[in-house]
Amino acid sequence: MIIDKNSDKLDVIKNRGNLLEGNYLKVATEIVEDVRKNGDEALFKYCIKFDNFNPKNSNLLVSEEEIDEAFNQVSKDLKIAIEKAKDNILSFHQKQVEKTWLYENDGIILGQKVLPLEKVGVYVPGGKASYFSSVLMNVLPAVAAGVKDISMCTPAINGKINPALLVAAKISGVTRIFKIGGASAIAALAYGTESVCKVDKITGPGNIYVAMAKKIVFGTVDIDMIAGPSEILVIADKFANPKFIAADMLAQCEHDELASAVCITDSKDLALQIEIEVKRQLLELPKKDIAKVSLEKFSAIVVVDSIEEACMLANDIAPEHLELYVESPMEKMSLIKNAGAIFLGGNSPEAVGDYFAGPNHVLPTGGSARFFSPLGAYDFLKKSSIIYYDKKALKEDSKHIIEMAMSENLNAHANSIKYRVDN
Amino acid sequence: MIIDKNSDKLDVIKNRGNLLEGNYLKVATEIVEDVRKNGDEALFKYCIKFDNFNPKNSNLLVSEEEIDEAFNQVSKDLKIAIEKAKDNILSFHQKQVEKTWLYENDGIILGQKVLPLEKVGVYVPGGKASYFSSVLMNVLPAVAAGVKDISMCTPAINGKINPALLVAAKISGVTRIFKIGGASAIAALAYGTESVCKVDKITGPGNIYVAMAKKIVFGTVDIDMIAGPSEILVIADKFANPKFIAADMLAQCEHDELASAVCITDSKDLALQIEIEVKRQLLELPKKDIAKVSLEKFSAIVVVDSIEEACMLANDIAPEHLELYVESPMEKMSLIKNAGAIFLGGNSPEAVGDYFAGPNHVLPTGGSARFFSPLGAYDFLKKSSIIYYDKKALKEDSKHIIEMAMSENLNAHANSIKYRVDN
Repeated sequence: MIIDKNSDKLDVIKNRGNLLEGNYLKVATEIVEDVRKNGDEALFKYCIKFDNFNPKNSNLLVSEEEIDEAFNQVSKDLKIAIEKAKDNILSFHQKQVEKTWLYENDGIILGQKVLPLEKVGVYVPGGKASYFSSVLMNVLPAVAAGVKDISMCTPAINGKINPALLVAAKISGVTRIFKIGGASAIAALAYGTESVCKVDKITGPGNIYVAMAKKIVFGTVDIDMIAGPSEILVIADKFANPKFIAADMLAQCEHDELASAVCITDSKDLALQIEIEVKRQLLELPKKDIAKVSLEKFSAIVVVDSIEEACMLANDIAPEHLELYVESPMEKMSLIKNAGAIFLGGNSPEAVGDYFAGPNHVLPTGGSARFFSPLGAYDFLKKSSIIYYDKKALKEDSKHIIEMAMSENLNAHANSIKYRVDN
Repeated sequence: MIIDKNSDKLDVIKNRGNLLEGNYLKVATEIVEDVRKNGDEALFKYCIKFDNFNPKNSNLLVSEEEIDEAFNQVSKDLKIAIEKAKDNILSFHQKQVEKTWLYENDGIILGQKVLPLEKVGVYVPGGKASYFSSVLMNVLPAVAAGVKDISMCTPAINGKINPALLVAAKISGVTRIFKIGGASAIAALAYGTESVCKVDKITGPGNIYVAMAKKIVFGTVDIDMIAGPSEILVIADKFANPKFIAADMLAQCEHDELASAVCITDSKDLALQIEIEVKRQLLELPKKDIAKVSLEKFSAIVVVDSIEEACMLANDIAPEHLELYVESPMEKMSLIKNAGAIFLGGNSPEAVGDYFAGPNHVLPTGGSARFFSPLGAYDFLKKSSIIYYDKKALKEDSKHIIEMAMSENLNAHANSIKYRVDN
């Protein structure tokens, strides 16, 4: 597992998310166009085909009774945990909500009006990757932003939905839940059908067809990032506990075979100990077959000369999750330029942020932390500029504006100023 | 021009930006892949082919001498106007810059680190749609955000660049200017070549090939919105001056044949007067042939029963530019939910914002103001979440986090907490 910092394996890790979209895009395009043109008829057809669920014999919307039933099926401890996580997540995201502002100067008022989006759609996968934490992390930023209408879509395989999803949806404040999945659900949210109301923005993870469908409808609605496979990068010095680092690396690797866990350290000793610990802990994991693949293919321990060098290498990789497990992590944080989320010190494993602390677990992957940000309340707000000039102010600036318009050969622009000033 | 609020023409106006991307996308894909694989060799080939400019015999970078020459060619009045516009634009966008924040509670520190992007690329078209105001509006938000490295690309047709572009670039604080254009310039910025440095984000307008190339490289870098044709919507009551409204509508229509100008009013009288004024003013315009087409095809005056109804219809259209030219516009502004920029009252024509007031002129088009915002300093900032737990805090929350991880069948996630708490 221990590699050199110049190893080609780091490139393999960085590029593991690049895949050929060709055929997936074609299939997704066909489904999206079908639902766009044929509405419910097409949507129901795909429910029957992919989920073995016929909305004609049932209801497309999850009923209050189904939600009550889900609350009975979920353990009390989990309900308490979800309630507490909700409070933390809501409270963090409320700090991201910007307000409308204006300023006035000499007859000129300028400003920025901020409003929540009106309607939002949240997609939640069914099957293996069906996580109630995704519901919390996608819905609560919208709630914090003030969005009043939130539609959730999730496939009802054989008519059933994982009860923890329904509990998380209810606790988070989802307006309604549609039993639909896949590319057809994305199309229904983007264009609307007889049964599904059109939204302004769609967020949430999904398989490759869902990701392609989101790309296709982008522009008609807004979407969140298209997430690639998950990844962690741990920067550790000799004071770190190898057992903890091994556990954090494996927590990433159990997600899927394309996941990646990298540790960069200035201690050769620590590197050797982590390697032993990873092997030992792996054997006990239920998902060891998955974790083994991502460990071998996309994970590594890199030994460098200093923590400064480790941070530089980490900035180049721009990981989704970065643990800064070193002495005085707060002081070293200024060295980190590119990371989705930064976990400081030995008592802040990624799992704390995945579920509970408050910040979002929807984070930029595959090096896109160079320019993307975590999902936040700001993603559910829109802005409008505000411009007011009084007559005197317009007269004062008119010469410059006319000069600029005429220099761009836009006479009608210049006229719109001249006529007012000459009036 | 006067139509009913239920007229199909409003749909024609709304959908005028939808075009078939098929063949453009194919050509752009070939060019992007060529530059990605073959670097400068491919890039130079396209310079020769499309711009009649051979970088091998010259220099790809604009020299200090060329910039000095441009300053000599541009009038003193225009330079003063650009300097003043720069101050206004910078000062408005600086108000959009968020700062890093942290908060602490009982052994837990949470926060959001905010940093400017490291490298940004700004594309500026050559030819007819070559506007120095685009340079100001794309570069200055990045400068306000604190971006230190800004590469501008613009095609040098026959080796020459419009001097006003160079002056605006220098005044705005561009780091370097490459004489490259089209889809190949976008590829060079996204992937880097021997001569062009790779950036983190690309913004700026361009023709359909540039737009397609931006779509292709999205993900490798971030991009701004893909702008559709420009549009204005004026809401006016009987107190409005029909001459001014006609001028503002024509200012939009002179841009291009796909532009759109709509006025919604509760005064039939005003509607009739605007119609007469538009016809009269049109005759005097150098670009009357262009304006005539967009007027006939995509422009209209709609008479409704009240200003409230006008605002509802405007929200449904979600225009790029909205003039609220009514009595007490500030009070009526709360009725506006969807608009890129809102111009208040009779002395705030769109041209004030296009060039000078301070807010950005890069605005969401084609109804996307429902979910997109003006280009701003916030588009050149990235965020990282910060999470710190001390040992006691982790112990206190551990039960809930373990419960959630185990409910998602993610044992390694649970282990990463257990090992620490049991230690």
